[in-house]
Amino acid sequence: MNHNTETPVTVIGLGLMGQALAGAFLKAGHPTIVWNRTSSKADHLVAQGARLAPTIGDALKAGSLTIICVTDYPALYELLGANEVELEGTMLINLTSGSSSQAREAARWAEQRGTRYLDGAIMAIPSAIGTADAVILHSGPQADFAAHESTLGALGTVTYLGADPGLASLYDVAGLAMMWSILNAWLQGTAMLRTAGVDAATYAPFARQIATVVAEWLPGYAEQIDSGSFPAEISALETDTRAMEHLIEESEAVGVNTELPKLLKTMADRAIAAGHGKEQYPVLIEEFGKLRKD
Amino acid sequence: MNHNTETPVTVIGLGLMGQALAGAFLKAGHPTIVWNRTSSKADHLVAQGARLAPTIGDALKAGSLTIICVTDYPALYELLGANEVELEGTMLINLTSGSSSQAREAARWAEQRGTRYLDGAIMAIPSAIGTADAVILHSGPQADFAAHESTLGALGTVTYLGADPGLASLYDVAGLAMMWSILNAWLQGTAMLRTAGVDAATYAPFARQIATVVAEWLPGYAEQIDSGSFPAEISALETDTRAMEHLIEESEAVGVNTELPKLLKTMADRAIAAGHGKEQYPVLIEEFGKLRKD
Repeated sequence: MNHNTETPVTVIGLGLMGQALAGAFLKAGHPTIVWNRTSSKADHLVAQGARLAPTIGDALKAGSLTIICVTDYPALYELLGANEVELEGTMLINLTSGSSSQAREAARWAEQRGTRYLDGAIMAIPSAIGTADAVILHSGPQADFAAHESTLGALGTVTYLGADPGLASLYDVAGLAMMWSILNAWLQGTAMLRTAGVDAATYAPFARQIATVVAEWLPGYAEQIDSGSFPAEISALETDTRAMEHLIEESEAVGVNTELPKLLKTMADRAIAAGHGKEQYPVLIEEFGKLRKD
Repeated sequence: MNHNTETPVTVIGLGLMGQALAGAFLKAGHPTIVWNRTSSKADHLVAQGARLAPTIGDALKAGSLTIICVTDYPALYELLGANEVELEGTMLINLTSGSSSQAREAARWAEQRGTRYLDGAIMAIPSAIGTADAVILHSGPQADFAAHESTLGALGTVTYLGADPGLASLYDVAGLAMMWSILNAWLQGTAMLRTAGVDAATYAPFARQIATVVAEWLPGYAEQIDSGSFPAEISALETDTRAMEHLIEESEAVGVNTELPKLLKTMADRAIAAGHGKEQYPVLIEEFGKLRKD
């Protein structure tokens, strides 16, 4: 599908992110209608060619699709749930941050009002919006995504995850957990190497290389999880924990934080206690899948 | 330097790893001398052309360099420290697992006995030895590494880290911390997505992509650490912690383990409490650099 830049697009909520979203549509040539509770936030966009709708209802009617990006879900219900707002027949793409259950609830709420609904999560900072670096995840009815994928493409790299509207926010937080975990592991290593006079810039390429190599293992390890069978093809968990103990001891010896090393070993020790010492690392999925009450 | 396969090499310690090391030298065409306390472990290598030395002293004399890979450092001292063993003039490359302080102590011990010493760490399983996938880290005098780099290349991808003999084991455990952290973050995300019926194989390519992208950030973030200045170019720590809270809540809501999410937030909260809320993530290096006694 070619990108039809004549498609009018509405953006509701003009915080930093909303302004970036509207700006990207304008830049791509879309007629762009905006609305915000505090209308002055639209000034800069209006100067670039956006049209400020007098009411939120007018804004919804003017666009072929409406992006909403507000502070939180209560703010979304407050704005869209007002009596005078006609939702029937609109196409709503909700990029407001929230949980998977909030997304699913909003999808049901939208359905009851006759509006089509996609939930999205933005894995980018406002300044990246409109570039390929801005990854925007979508979930909900596939046909709705397919119908608007080209228009949404003005915002960045858009991805469709599946019909469950909760998926975008689940993938989002899962991705953030990966991001922070890599940064923390790198900080742990950097802190250790600094005790030997190695600067961060010297260690970073090594950490990058390890991360890149390990990332490549994930699809293969995923097969073990999906099959529920964890033969120790590379290494058995009980061998891994000896090296984890070593990491803890070395961290203590050089005087850096040991909480990350200890959590690594705690998780592995539990899997060994559960009888999985001779199996391979992904067997830890059973421990990660359990909410502990203690 | 061309690889001179006429260089005779000695391997002391024939556990699974030692056997793999000797096997790789044999395969590369090196005259290979082996020794092990239990000599029967050499049988398979002798059948492939290795020469079993009658004593450890003979083994040391026969090779231009000696690789030692035994259970631990006490085992190394017991073998090499025996009265009848002449170390003077030998070149020792110690691939025994241990800490950075054990490596530095062994380097001093070796120097006192007139033997040249490199410390190494093997980031590979035995079956990978002899292939490019086997990364072997070395630290100690650069001239000694340069003199033997070509011969060591028969074992895998050999890397030199610096003159401090403790570096190989520090990089080794830092790399392992990265490896397990990526695997755990992936398991956390996989556990969360499974609650929505997404299988591990579906989620893995997404996790791989995030890990690969974040790995690329590390050299840039390292500059902040080395300069000691952490301007929030991408995101301020206090913004990050709101998303961390969200990750904890989502993990609880879907019923998966929350310890990893909580540790992420604990570390960031401490940096905020120390006054770094408006700075960028790598400012956490100060927290990672502290050994907490509580």
